[in-house]
Amino acid sequence: MKKIGIADTTFARVDMAKIAINELESNISGYKIIRYTVPGIKDLPVACKKLFDEKECDIIIALGMPGPKPIDKQCAHEASLGLINAQLLCNKHIIEVFVHENEANNNKELAWLVENRTREHVLNLIDLLFNPKNLIKKAGKGLREGLKDAGSLLE
Amino acid sequence: MKKIGIADTTFARVDMAKIAINELESNISGYKIIRYTVPGIKDLPVACKKLFDEKECDIIIALGMPGPKPIDKQCAHEASLGLINAQLLCNKHIIEVFVHENEANNNKELAWLVENRTREHVLNLIDLLFNPKNLIKKAGKGLREGLKDAGSLLE
Amino acid sequence: MKKIGIADTTFARVDMAKIAINELESNISGYKIIRYTVPGIKDLPVACKKLFDEKECDIIIALGMPGPKPIDKQCAHEASLGLINAQLLCNKHIIEVFVHENEANNNKELAWLVENRTREHVLNLIDLLFNPKNLIKKAGKGLREGLKDAGSLLE
Amino acid sequence: MKKIGIADTTFARVDMAKIAINELESNISGYKIIRYTVPGIKDLPVACKKLFDEKECDIIIALGMPGPKPIDKQCAHEASLGLINAQLLCNKHIIEVFVHENEANNNKELAWLVENRTREHVLNLIDLLFNPKNLIKKAGKGLREGLKDAGSLLE
Amino acid sequence: MKKIGIADTTFARVDMAKIAINELESNISGYKIIRYTVPGIKDLPVACKKLFDEKECDIIIALGMPGPKPIDKQCAHEASLGLINAQLLCNKHIIEVFVHENEANNNKELAWLVENRTREHVLNLIDLLFNPKNLIKKAGKGLREGLKDAGSLLE
Repeated sequence: MKKIGIADTTFARVDMAKIAINELESNISGYKIIRYTVPGIKDLPVACKKLFDEKECDIIIALGMPGPKPIDKQCAHEASLGLINAQLLCNKHIIEVFVHENEANNNKELAWLVENRTREHVLNLIDLLFNPKNLIKKAGKGLREGLKDAGSLLE
Repeated sequence: MKKIGIADTTFARVDMAKIAINELESNISGYKIIRYTVPGIKDLPVACKKLFDEKECDIIIALGMPGPKPIDKQCAHEASLGLINAQLLCNKHIIEVFVHENEANNNKELAWLVENRTREHVLNLIDLLFNPKNLIKKAGKGLREGLKDAGSLLE
Repeated sequence: MKKIGIADTTFARVDMAKIAINELESNISGYKIIRYTVPGIKDLPVACKKLFDEKECDIIIALGMPGPKPIDKQCAHEASLGLINAQLLCNKHIIEVFVHENEANNNKELAWLVENRTREHVLNLIDLLFNPKNLIKKAGKGLREGLKDAGSLLE
Repeated sequence: MKKIGIADTTFARVDMAKIAINELESNISGYKIIRYTVPGIKDLPVACKKLFDEKECDIIIALGMPGPKPIDKQCAHEASLGLINAQLLCNKHIIEVFVHENEANNNKELAWLVENRTREHVLNLIDLLFNPKNLIKKAGKGLREGLKDAGSLLE
Repeated sequence: MKKIGIADTTFARVDMAKIAINELESNISGYKIIRYTVPGIKDLPVACKKLFDEKECDIIIALGMPGPKPIDKQCAHEASLGLINAQLLCNKHIIEVFVHENEANNNKELAWLVENRTREHVLNLIDLLFNPKNLIKKAGKGLREGLKDAGSLLE
């Protein structure tokens, strides 16, 4: 049975893991979820590394909401580099779902974006884990998780 | 018995380790503290690596106060990347508590912020080490260590 | 028989892998292509690492189209660092073909640039894999994949 | 007998190693110095790695003077990241002493700052190597090597 | 017999490797050169790693000419970090010779700078490989490869 890790934070302003779990349950069965909540996004890389090494997860979705200030952007950059390194060390995918607080005009829009992006990336995770050929069919389609797709340049 | 590492600096303008030790003592017992003071925040990554590898710490809190100049921000960025790498190499958490000198309007406010953030992150450390499920309950609550919580978007 | 990895994304707005495959087929035979599509460019480093370690690819072309916003530039930077690290860990080349959305004035020009750069980098890949001395002949010629060559300073 | 590495550059405009050696000799005895001069600060990380691995140094002081231009700042950033990585790979301290050319108003002031910062960091090195508890006493005191100490916020 | 690696690019607008080879031949004998040309500077790190691991080079000179745009600066930054990491992994020096296109006022001046910096760094490489004590004599002299030396602050 495949093990799916969900790493999330207390810093985020939405319970993103709950959304991810709901989307997983709506789409697949016969897998195990292991959830790991940490304080902030810079704690996610080692949380994911531990989920791979100690909990034997096959894939992870890492969920976070970086704040709007320059220091928050820097934290997100550091977290992303750590997540990439963790993947290289473990040869497994971590789907990073970061929603920056200033990506939306108001709280309602932001909550909507968080939910949508999380759900769409859960579908990516499912494809990567169970059906990677599905992604080949979508290659170059200008997909944008949580927002309107940019679409293909040639259509 | 669990070993908790505390790494701090002579550069900081508050004895942050003293605050952390006090907060630990107010909350838990039956653990060992190993303290390691270095000159500046860029010395923290290897200090933490040594605390894990040579002192067998189970978790570390890394305490620092980056200065207000651009070069100080760059140092903090380098230190953070090193702390993330140290965690990935050791599969253990380092709770980074950095308070930037320009986060407050005056020395009194800054000292208050340093104390508050340190104490709140010590509680995170305790949860990570002894009671990780506590963090799941706080997931997505918009927690902000040392400052007013941002709160959940949906409340 | 040599194995050539092609890693691409659903984020890109052109099916870059299709172009790369076409250019490979127009130039060489007696090799195997292994294609791996991921959601975005930050997923490329581990995809390439897996193509090397699990699929035994000898060389990879990594294809992506970073968006026009500052956050997209940061993602491209993170992806590039990850791709360089993956190469260092595996001692094999990954030819990175990134086309930034704001490199062209309109969609038609952008599509043209994507096609041209991809094709010219496929030729680089072929040289690196089968005929590295070809590249020595072109050294210092100011080559620019997808755009007009800058040319030698001394001609 | 402890081995102290000194890594310096031909790019620097002061013979910083000479100052460091003088400060070491004024304070301690019964140790061995191994000096390694490289062209620029980006050559320091591997020089330090070699001092640890091939010369069995116990600690290193890395000395450099980044130039005033943006490209020099970027070089310093790259060098610092490399120095932190070298430390993580070897589990030993490298005290980085960088003096940026634009930290002073004129050459005389700059030379004075280089000398002072180097000497004060040699004292840090001695503490880290022989007497780490000394640093705990200085924790949170707002020390600033080469400049006036910022001091404790609470005094 | 010592093996000297030369890694260069087709992106550069001068055949820098030819200059490096000429300068080596003018100064030393009894060594072997292994040349490796890649498309761009981001391909240099793995090329150097392969020169160390597969061709047993003792030292490498990595030659490149980053373009004038912000994206080119970012590429140079990524390449430099990769070159530093490659050195740390192999415990051998890579002398990076990058000449940025906007370092000179016109093509003639730029070509002159490329030639001069390359030749002066070849001399550094020779010192590092055969006569490291020579560099100690030049420590702190404010040397600037390819440009007028800044000189010592104290003279």
